[in-house]
Amino acid sequence: MDVKAAVAFEAGKPLTIETVHLDPPKEGEVLVEIKATGVCHTDAYTLSGADPEGLFPTILGHEGAGVVVEVGTGVKSLKPGDHVIPLYTPECRNCEYCLSGKTNLCQAIRSTQGRGVMPDGTSRFTWQSRLENRLESRLEKSKPNGSSPFSIEKTMIHHYMGTSTFAHYTVLPEIALAKIREDAPFEKVCYIGCGVTTGIGAVINTAKVEPGANVIVFGLGGIGLNVIQGARMVGANMIVGVDLNPKKRSLAEKLGMTHFVNPSEVEGDLVPYLVDLTKGGADYSFECIGNIKLMRQALECCHKGWGVSVIIGVAGAGQEISTRPFQLVTGRVWKGSAFGGAKGRTDVPKIVDWYMDGKINIDDLITKVMPIEQVNDAFDIMHQGEGIRTVLTF
Amino acid sequence: MDVKAAVAFEAGKPLTIETVHLDPPKEGEVLVEIKATGVCHTDAYTLSGADPEGLFPTILGHEGAGVVVEVGTGVKSLKPGDHVIPLYTPECRNCEYCLSGKTNLCQAIRSTQGRGVMPDGTSRFTWQSRLENRLESRLEKSKPNGSSPFSIEKTMIHHYMGTSTFAHYTVLPEIALAKIREDAPFEKVCYIGCGVTTGIGAVINTAKVEPGANVIVFGLGGIGLNVIQGARMVGANMIVGVDLNPKKRSLAEKLGMTHFVNPSEVEGDLVPYLVDLTKGGADYSFECIGNIKLMRQALECCHKGWGVSVIIGVAGAGQEISTRPFQLVTGRVWKGSAFGGAKGRTDVPKIVDWYMDGKINIDDLITKVMPIEQVNDAFDIMHQGEGIRTVLTF
Repeated sequence: MDVKAAVAFEAGKPLTIETVHLDPPKEGEVLVEIKATGVCHTDAYTLSGADPEGLFPTILGHEGAGVVVEVGTGVKSLKPGDHVIPLYTPECRNCEYCLSGKTNLCQAIRSTQGRGVMPDGTSRFTWQSRLENRLESRLEKSKPNGSSPFSIEKTMIHHYMGTSTFAHYTVLPEIALAKIREDAPFEKVCYIGCGVTTGIGAVINTAKVEPGANVIVFGLGGIGLNVIQGARMVGANMIVGVDLNPKKRSLAEKLGMTHFVNPSEVEGDLVPYLVDLTKGGADYSFECIGNIKLMRQALECCHKGWGVSVIIGVAGAGQEISTRPFQLVTGRVWKGSAFGGAKGRTDVPKIVDWYMDGKINIDDLITKVMPIEQVNDAFDIMHQGEGIRTVLTF
Repeated sequence: MDVKAAVAFEAGKPLTIETVHLDPPKEGEVLVEIKATGVCHTDAYTLSGADPEGLFPTILGHEGAGVVVEVGTGVKSLKPGDHVIPLYTPECRNCEYCLSGKTNLCQAIRSTQGRGVMPDGTSRFTWQSRLENRLESRLEKSKPNGSSPFSIEKTMIHHYMGTSTFAHYTVLPEIALAKIREDAPFEKVCYIGCGVTTGIGAVINTAKVEPGANVIVFGLGGIGLNVIQGARMVGANMIVGVDLNPKKRSLAEKLGMTHFVNPSEVEGDLVPYLVDLTKGGADYSFECIGNIKLMRQALECCHKGWGVSVIIGVAGAGQEISTRPFQLVTGRVWKGSAFGGAKGRTDVPKIVDWYMDGKINIDDLITKVMPIEQVNDAFDIMHQGEGIRTVLTF
């Protein structure tokens, strides 16, 4: 079928809205109509060319919500009409990782996902330039039976993170779709497909913050704000937000931040300041930016004896974190979180419920909604640091 | 009282056996006759001068066992005749750390311990050189009433780690003594005062290794061997020992090691070799040497998704560990362990029971027993890498 999609042909270039060809779902696969999709820093990171694993051409987007249109053979847990959120971290419930009970990093389709293809090793997306389209239609006219003596090679378009939600229709493996309730608004709950779950999940699943804990959050962007509301939801005591931008303060406070620290206004070193503020250090800290210096500060501002620091942000390729081992020997723990430690098919529907029940706030975090045609504007808005999340609709 | 002790007057110099003066126990303190004491790398580290917190003159030793001789006012949990193991990590059961339930790093006497004195800020040990002794006794003779017109200043000797077990008698706070059963042999269970508990405790308390787990241990010295027998005790599956010295192999195997890896015999990088050997990486790894390169390898040979690496070894002052944050974001956890995460008064008596019940092996780890007079020989033996633990007796 022909599908409207925002295609990234080259690193560093704007996306273009194209009509691409989408093959039907194969065994174990599902065709989904994307209704809404967020635009995330990870999309921008890959588009920039800085991501060493970036593949082009590709259809970006990994934070979507939509409706099942058609299922391939063997698909049992989904049927046409089901509302779903695509999962860039699938949950097969059969691999060593899923069965370990210790991680959400399902490896069932990891290798093909990394190569931008479906589990069978091929892409469902292809594309012909308009010139090629015209040429082919002329060739077809000259040969009424349709078998052209010339083969026009179609360009394979890579899937991205197994999701490619910047396409109006996309194909995913059944194990990479979370079925959600039908009364949840797509242009809100699409954000649960990445940012919301990454932030709240890091609090609940990775750090396991308990009521009364003191929490420090580095970076009050889309992830950091969700860490804050996750910490508030589980009953944290102090929720300290650290950001250089004072404009971030009011929304963070609305979501549960109790103390705002602007490092540019702190005299002396930030770490002892934060340790003093929390009367001994954070029980839990979260780095939500991807800055290796902040990762170190986030660890070192943790409470001696038990403080746990969770890295959520993605650092630049090849960058390294460091600290004195004494920081760990005296009881601090350094860990990381991907997709909030959430098992998507199991946990994402619950987070949708929390939103629908008013336990978490997504509405204030979706600061712009615009049609997919304005995808490049959405990236511009993100780079300008305006607002939190822009959602694109089809 | 006059007490025989091995005194470290200066960094880098041999110890000398001296008669020192020991004041009686004050409130909350206990006088202990040390029957046996191990000689540990930490003593050698401080003696070398490399420890930035080392204070001289001092009486080293922190791995002892003995008998209570006298208790100060207010001491309730101990009485003369009780058998005890001194604790360099006390357990007051009242401080924020003890009450957290999350750490063994009791802070009740941390600041005075670090300054080489008892909780009231003074030392119980003093010393006069033989020359001073002769001078003083002559002065006393010239003034029969004993009040000398000249004051001979005595040299204050620092306590070490709050224990100073290289003295025949020593004074400790009540909270720094674990009461143990009376049928346990001093020259064996003194090792539980540091090495045994540090190794086994890191497995049980810090890492919480579960049955069936695959474990990699870096360094097969006194700590690493105890990690191995801890892993065996809790039912680990593969227990891989990594050491450059092939002589370490047989004893490690006796204690439970299932696979020996000599890095000098591995072609290519050690980390992928260990990941292959364990079919995906270690569920738990332990660095037992204090080498920051090994600490990184120990982390990176852990299993993606859930591997936990525990730093036990003490790195040189100012040295730093580093890795790519991706190692943590993909599920590995970096932590550290001090005194095996053990709460001394609670856990040490249990470990003594395990030894007496034959659950753990200490006999094979005590490779030499000699009188305190040979303390410098004991350091030499350690530096030569011969044997595992030398115990000194009084």
